[in-house]
Amino acid sequence: MAKYSIGVDYGTLSGRALLIDVETGEELASSVYEYPHQVMDQKLPSGKKLPQDWALQHPQDYLDVLYHTIPEVLKEAKVSPEDVIGLGTDFTACTVLPVKRDGTPLCFLPEFEDEPHAYVKLWKHHAAQDKANRLNEIAQQRGEKWLQNYGGKISSEWAIPKLWQIAEEAPAVYDGMDRFIEAADWIVWQLTGKESRNSCTAGYKAIWNKRTGYPSEEFFAALSPKLTHAVKEKLGTEITPLGQKAGGITAEMAKLTGLKEGTAVSVGNVDAHVCVPAAGIDGPAKMLAIIGTSTCHMMMGTEEKQVPGMCGVVEDGIMPGYFGYEAGQSCVGDHFAWVIDNCVPASYREEAKKEGKNIHAFLREKAQLQKPGESGLLALDWWNGNRSILVDADLSGVLLGMTLQTKPEEIYRALIEATAYGTRVLVENYRAHGVPVEEFIASGGIAWKDPMTMQIYSDVLNMPVKIVGTLQGPAYGSALFGAVAAGKEAGGYEDIFAAARRLGKVKQEFYTPIPENVAVYEKLYQEYVRLHDYFGRGENDVMKRLKTLKKEQSR
Amino acid sequence: MAKYSIGVDYGTLSGRALLIDVETGEELASSVYEYPHQVMDQKLPSGKKLPQDWALQHPQDYLDVLYHTIPEVLKEAKVSPEDVIGLGTDFTACTVLPVKRDGTPLCFLPEFEDEPHAYVKLWKHHAAQDKANRLNEIAQQRGEKWLQNYGGKISSEWAIPKLWQIAEEAPAVYDGMDRFIEAADWIVWQLTGKESRNSCTAGYKAIWNKRTGYPSEEFFAALSPKLTHAVKEKLGTEITPLGQKAGGITAEMAKLTGLKEGTAVSVGNVDAHVCVPAAGIDGPAKMLAIIGTSTCHMMMGTEEKQVPGMCGVVEDGIMPGYFGYEAGQSCVGDHFAWVIDNCVPASYREEAKKEGKNIHAFLREKAQLQKPGESGLLALDWWNGNRSILVDADLSGVLLGMTLQTKPEEIYRALIEATAYGTRVLVENYRAHGVPVEEFIASGGIAWKDPMTMQIYSDVLNMPVKIVGTLQGPAYGSALFGAVAAGKEAGGYEDIFAAARRLGKVKQEFYTPIPENVAVYEKLYQEYVRLHDYFGRGENDVMKRLKTLKKEQSR
Repeated sequence: MAKYSIGVDYGTLSGRALLIDVETGEELASSVYEYPHQVMDQKLPSGKKLPQDWALQHPQDYLDVLYHTIPEVLKEAKVSPEDVIGLGTDFTACTVLPVKRDGTPLCFLPEFEDEPHAYVKLWKHHAAQDKANRLNEIAQQRGEKWLQNYGGKISSEWAIPKLWQIAEEAPAVYDGMDRFIEAADWIVWQLTGKESRNSCTAGYKAIWNKRTGYPSEEFFAALSPKLTHAVKEKLGTEITPLGQKAGGITAEMAKLTGLKEGTAVSVGNVDAHVCVPAAGIDGPAKMLAIIGTSTCHMMMGTEEKQVPGMCGVVEDGIMPGYFGYEAGQSCVGDHFAWVIDNCVPASYREEAKKEGKNIHAFLREKAQLQKPGESGLLALDWWNGNRSILVDADLSGVLLGMTLQTKPEEIYRALIEATAYGTRVLVENYRAHGVPVEEFIASGGIAWKDPMTMQIYSDVLNMPVKIVGTLQGPAYGSALFGAVAAGKEAGGYEDIFAAARRLGKVKQEFYTPIPENVAVYEKLYQEYVRLHDYFGRGENDVMKRLKTLKKEQSR
Repeated sequence: MAKYSIGVDYGTLSGRALLIDVETGEELASSVYEYPHQVMDQKLPSGKKLPQDWALQHPQDYLDVLYHTIPEVLKEAKVSPEDVIGLGTDFTACTVLPVKRDGTPLCFLPEFEDEPHAYVKLWKHHAAQDKANRLNEIAQQRGEKWLQNYGGKISSEWAIPKLWQIAEEAPAVYDGMDRFIEAADWIVWQLTGKESRNSCTAGYKAIWNKRTGYPSEEFFAALSPKLTHAVKEKLGTEITPLGQKAGGITAEMAKLTGLKEGTAVSVGNVDAHVCVPAAGIDGPAKMLAIIGTSTCHMMMGTEEKQVPGMCGVVEDGIMPGYFGYEAGQSCVGDHFAWVIDNCVPASYREEAKKEGKNIHAFLREKAQLQKPGESGLLALDWWNGNRSILVDADLSGVLLGMTLQTKPEEIYRALIEATAYGTRVLVENYRAHGVPVEEFIASGGIAWKDPMTMQIYSDVLNMPVKIVGTLQGPAYGSALFGAVAAGKEAGGYEDIFAAARRLGKVKQEFYTPIPENVAVYEKLYQEYVRLHDYFGRGENDVMKRLKTLKKEQSR
């Protein structure tokens, strides 16, 4: 009798369930549910206005995803709940909320429903930037060693700055919460009735380390006396490695989702990290690039190396027993969308329409006719700052080599190339700091649908580029973790490595470097690195000065 | 009885006659005639194909301009030929042709009509670049002092490289010509029946100097033995200062144009230079910027200073008795057109159409809402290389400060600002080399119709910006020279200074610097200069390397 697992992937605007056959990996059914409250960045449901840089969500939406999508996939796949052996979930992170001891979100309580700080702070809530800045200063002054595990900088998107913002701006919420928890863990709590905390979000987003724990109480006290006991009082110190079972589906949740009570649920996880086994990765030095509007680079290593500019290194952070390295490019597909929105003349639109082509495809076709270096353009892919390896949101984009003959498709291609150079900088940076990178696997829609871009990546990296064999990477990865939570005896897997080896999906076709292109891109890459360092490492801080002026003049 | 003068301005695609009242400056009639042969850059009239980078014209077109436009303006203004006291002309330069001793163009002779080298080489004929390169090398090796009068570099557009190309590629044409002459002087020869050579084209385009003459025969011999006696044999050494009368209209030309025989004709002149008196400029330190697709900067000084990067300094080169300084920006309005052609989304076109606005005006309106520095953008205005002060066609454009929020109108404004910074670099360069710049006067369509751009120039230069009061600057200036050729007794003027003072036209409204903008632009200008020097003065030659690669890859 076939057995099944369900993965539920919580994105920024919707949640998706995917039901797979745990023996074959076949994707039998999927269902998407859009969050009714979307991203609340203007006002609360009550109408209360939100300040700039806020981004909240409503936890009820996350529950509704379960109630809608799980019954849907069961029905669509015509699978009996009896045969669903496991459920895994993944979430955007750091997406955090304050809750009571029983898991009730504070925003569900009438006394807090008009209080912004009582809601979920979405990963892209950026209103704690001042806290992050002060945190980094204090950590540096105190010589906190953990800082280097995060490329030397804690992001305003992460848990401690967000918690600090609550403590300072809404002490009643701070005092009123019993737990401050990642949505990734909260949803597992809702499914199993038991609080658990996963090693991934704790490590990457809350400065937890398997060997040394959280930062000290002295450090928290230095931030603010109110935070002194934050770990003990709000975060909790019991951390479960990825790949473990968190518990079984509660009776109530079984009723609401149609699953069987007691169905195994894995500990919480993060959307990018959960993709690694989905790509069939079962060991170190294999980089997974999840290419979308931005790119996330996941890789495992056998040692904890402090690599400047990465987002984090966390033991058990991707798969148990390895050090998980995360790095990122803050703008990738968004560049291409920018060109489409701003640099496509009406004549191109008309021509594309006439030929019945999507405008991206139309531009790609034109870009494809160019040889490397033929446009004379070189770009810095910093339209949204630089995450790795410069960790500097105040950097900005450059187009160089412009002439009166420069065409939109050349700008389009130059930006694709720039993101490839940016990826190579990050790969070389790992290598230079003793972390080998031996394979490169790309996932996401661009990887799947854009052979030109993938060939450019292969040529620039001078490495073969493999493509993940599913477009549902996160949901698929979560389903793998669900099958691991169920265990081998129930028809699942003994560990995530076994599941990855068996069910990991990579396309048969892959890209190999074309030597003549490699030679040209090698030259262009050297030019890129020179400008990268000139503008990015302090030789000429013109970008920062322009941003300062921009802020002054925008008032 | 009112007296009149006619100016004829020969542009790249057409010629225009303008008839003015010499007492009031009133513009009474104008007429344009488009060259039937346009620019021949693909093939000869015979169908013979032309190589790349060639640009020829047909001298018959220049004559036809006279035959069509002069009768037209006489008729339109209802003016008797008796009352037209003078005629002035100006031409694009260096636009040169080989002719027989009697002035007959070689291309009019049956034996040469299929020979490309027998035609007019238009200013933008770029096929003598290799000659220019070798000429510059040889001049440098020989330590030729005159080289510094041309910013250290002779352009491939100028007379000697073009003559050398003929000598090398078509010796029969070289041997068959008795004179190699600027079209500016040839047209005057056709009008008056007498050869004359003006000090402007001789000085700026043929390396002639009032005090030292042409380069030595040794220099010419070093280029090529065939060129040894080029000056004596082909160019002629009698040079007439601007503002002189060349002769009177011949009987035959009188018949063909409707003018009276003997009507005074001034010596030939160049379109940009002739605009200076039209702007009312009668002395040194007043810079005239003729802003179009590119910008030409004309100014007079009292001393011959060798200023790096200018196009040339020539005694009597603009008005007699002064040293005429010329500099230029190779791309100005062309930048804005590039944005319009490449960076205007369909939605903008539709909106502009709905509002009944021209797309330039539409973008300008949006750009106008921005404060200086508000976009965070900084551009290098090198879409077509840099003429002054870097004299480097291999430089290319830069856009820096790009973000996902960057809008087309911000790019548009950044390019306007960049051309203003480029102008300021050139002004500061003059000042740094002992040539004062005390006034700034702008002419051309952009100056006339685009207050935002002119205000930006005023703010960036921190100088008042005046606007020339006629859109027919060259034809108007030529008419002034016509009135000077006629002389005071005939109802004209004793010299060009008197004519300029009396008839020079500047608009009443002008632009004055806005202190708060000046302060911001001062900062931005400093950033511009730093990038200008970094990319333009050898610190990082990435632009040249990209161009080399581009050439290699375009093969």
